[in-house]
Amino acid sequence: MLKRFFSSSTAKMAADKSRFVPTSGSYPKGFNVGALASGVKKNSTLDLALLLSEKPASAAAVFTTNKYKAAPVVVSRQVLDQCGGEGINGVVINSGCANAVTGEGGLKDARSMVAQVDKLSGSATASTLVMSTGVIGQRLQMDKILPGIDKLGQTPGLLGSDHDHWLTCAKGIMTTDTFPKLVSKSFEIDGVQYSLAGLAKGAGMICPNMATLLGFFVTDAPVAPAALKSILTHAVDHSFNCISVDGDMSTNDTISALANGAAGGNEITEDSPSYEILKHEITAFSQQLSQLVVRDGEGATKFITLRVEDALSYADARAVAASIANSALFKTAMYGKDANWGRILCATGYAGVEVEPTKTSVSFIPTDGSAELKLLVDGEPENVDEARASEILEAEDLEILVQLGTGGGQEAQFWTCDFSHEYVTINGDYRS
Amino acid sequence: MLKRFFSSSTAKMAADKSRFVPTSGSYPKGFNVGALASGVKKNSTLDLALLLSEKPASAAAVFTTNKYKAAPVVVSRQVLDQCGGEGINGVVINSGCANAVTGEGGLKDARSMVAQVDKLSGSATASTLVMSTGVIGQRLQMDKILPGIDKLGQTPGLLGSDHDHWLTCAKGIMTTDTFPKLVSKSFEIDGVQYSLAGLAKGAGMICPNMATLLGFFVTDAPVAPAALKSILTHAVDHSFNCISVDGDMSTNDTISALANGAAGGNEITEDSPSYEILKHEITAFSQQLSQLVVRDGEGATKFITLRVEDALSYADARAVAASIANSALFKTAMYGKDANWGRILCATGYAGVEVEPTKTSVSFIPTDGSAELKLLVDGEPENVDEARASEILEAEDLEILVQLGTGGGQEAQFWTCDFSHEYVTINGDYRS
Repeated sequence: MLKRFFSSSTAKMAADKSRFVPTSGSYPKGFNVGALASGVKKNSTLDLALLLSEKPASAAAVFTTNKYKAAPVVVSRQVLDQCGGEGINGVVINSGCANAVTGEGGLKDARSMVAQVDKLSGSATASTLVMSTGVIGQRLQMDKILPGIDKLGQTPGLLGSDHDHWLTCAKGIMTTDTFPKLVSKSFEIDGVQYSLAGLAKGAGMICPNMATLLGFFVTDAPVAPAALKSILTHAVDHSFNCISVDGDMSTNDTISALANGAAGGNEITEDSPSYEILKHEITAFSQQLSQLVVRDGEGATKFITLRVEDALSYADARAVAASIANSALFKTAMYGKDANWGRILCATGYAGVEVEPTKTSVSFIPTDGSAELKLLVDGEPENVDEARASEILEAEDLEILVQLGTGGGQEAQFWTCDFSHEYVTINGDYRS
Repeated sequence: MLKRFFSSSTAKMAADKSRFVPTSGSYPKGFNVGALASGVKKNSTLDLALLLSEKPASAAAVFTTNKYKAAPVVVSRQVLDQCGGEGINGVVINSGCANAVTGEGGLKDARSMVAQVDKLSGSATASTLVMSTGVIGQRLQMDKILPGIDKLGQTPGLLGSDHDHWLTCAKGIMTTDTFPKLVSKSFEIDGVQYSLAGLAKGAGMICPNMATLLGFFVTDAPVAPAALKSILTHAVDHSFNCISVDGDMSTNDTISALANGAAGGNEITEDSPSYEILKHEITAFSQQLSQLVVRDGEGATKFITLRVEDALSYADARAVAASIANSALFKTAMYGKDANWGRILCATGYAGVEVEPTKTSVSFIPTDGSAELKLLVDGEPENVDEARASEILEAEDLEILVQLGTGGGQEAQFWTCDFSHEYVTINGDYRS
């Protein structure tokens, strides 16, 4: 189990994060969720989560680009390939063990988890997605996982569709997360009310350029598999691929989406007039969910929005933002509330994209609505009011604007956190 | 000035590093070096170093690839371009202020430093290389730097060629370094004895794929400019480009080399039979010097050699090693003495190069000569003896062997350190 060394200030900060945990929600119809403590984690901590759809659902997923894909990534991809993104009945997630780099045995274990859920949903073919998170290189304790799945599916009350069940499910996938990440909302298309619910876990091994972490969201809208896949890809590209905690890409990262159509209405395809509305809704939702991962970055004390403007392309703008977000020097400066903007410029300069040094500008944008603080204007340093800079850096939230001056006019947003003593404590001692 | 919060254990560790500071040396003829406290740094700390060659020297340098090149980088490159790498008389280095992102004024300041040294050496054209290290975005205090250069050149005893002068010079370029990095050695070519001396500063903003940091080495061998340039490039590619402290590439990184021929003998060109000998000597020397930078990584408690074998190319092998070396999760695990080898695999998997997951193996190689500890063999985890792993991780030095199993047979070596609470302390509070 995790041993955490909270300093009093960190404990206070973590406690404040309770404001990101919802006390109610608007959840999609036809999904039953829940979690229990299977015994993989010590101290009766929730470690096994299950979602069952009452109707076979369309499904899509994006997976890690890491070459050492974990067994659940390999198996979930096979399941989706085989069913063509149709007829998915469940998602099972365990925390505490990543089932990654576990060889042939690990693949067998992941397949057993799928089969165990398929039995519950009475499916003759593989119709379950599986995800795992936790330590790499250890085999799953199947003697705990398989009975746990059965218990979840067969014990009355363990699965359900109310807020408490969703919150319990979100807690079941946590590792070093300090709060469960759960978001829900409702929206209307063609007079039909739909809901979206999403869960994520994050904290460490978070880096863009891939699916990035474990999460899924489900809706009761009727969405064709191809439309769901393209919407998911767009949403992740503008949300989970725009966040960073520590720059490490996990072997297990998976974001999946299920749409069971339980709320009725016409099926949404890529040609539907409502396709763009749904894409917009899901992308905004995905950004909201992904930002919670940054809020709960391991040891994070700050939430930083990076806005990079006037790049030659969106990809360039995002590359600069990612370079800053992954700079250990930038992140430690933010932790130290040090307006050391030279480190922002430095990380911009090694991002490998076109910039115009004599037209580059950097500012702090306070999130309380007060005036922008210019740090660098057209390549020339401003005479910075350090007292004002310190004032701005006292706040938990900060926006940093970097204008590259290329004349290209493209921009990107990116969200990251700082790098604290607590991060080192957590990760120096993860397995103990 | 830097405020350091040494825990007692860190202070002990830093004290132990005195074994890396030489008490004598074998220095090249015809160079006079020294340093003084100009007043840029507080508390009379050495912050201005000067080297003058008695004879005009061949010179070469490799510079940062950061897009925001510091003024001294721009100016030194211009000096070398103008003189074609011939007739260089001096190198001046200040610490405490990087003169980076300082606009037109910063370029003027760097040129003034060159001119001030040129006056001392009586050169009518620009014949001095200039380097700066410290905080980005602040102008140099020229009212302290220029008189400091004059004082260094004109006060008897401040410049000299004995061990104490070299050590003082090495101290003058330190920033967050905890010990001066000075290496010297002698070697023979065609019956003539030559010497090499090298200085470096490092500690933070250390990442491969560029010149990487501030350093220079000088020899009294007679080397043609083109030969010196090609030897320097090869040496840096296999030394300073194979180390990492924190993955940040500085705006100021420069490694330069001077050869004044004061020891006599025939000039060495790229066609000389002795060219390969000199290349070998300088590359090995450069590795030794670059490893000292890792030894003194900000907050480092470990010195880790990464050996990546059986890649498709040297570049692939080095990319994997760099990916591991820059992983915050790997580095914090090493700090925590945690045999969490999954993080090694994970960073290998996102390096973006060809690997064969089912033929990948990972081992710890103890540096005391005891037996290798296999962690992963052909993609299958070993049943690791955790007690033995802990024992191995207690040592300051560790070698990690990663075999990618591609059949390509290419390998690379890379040197890095861990990521500690002390790193966060240092960089959260650098400017205060």
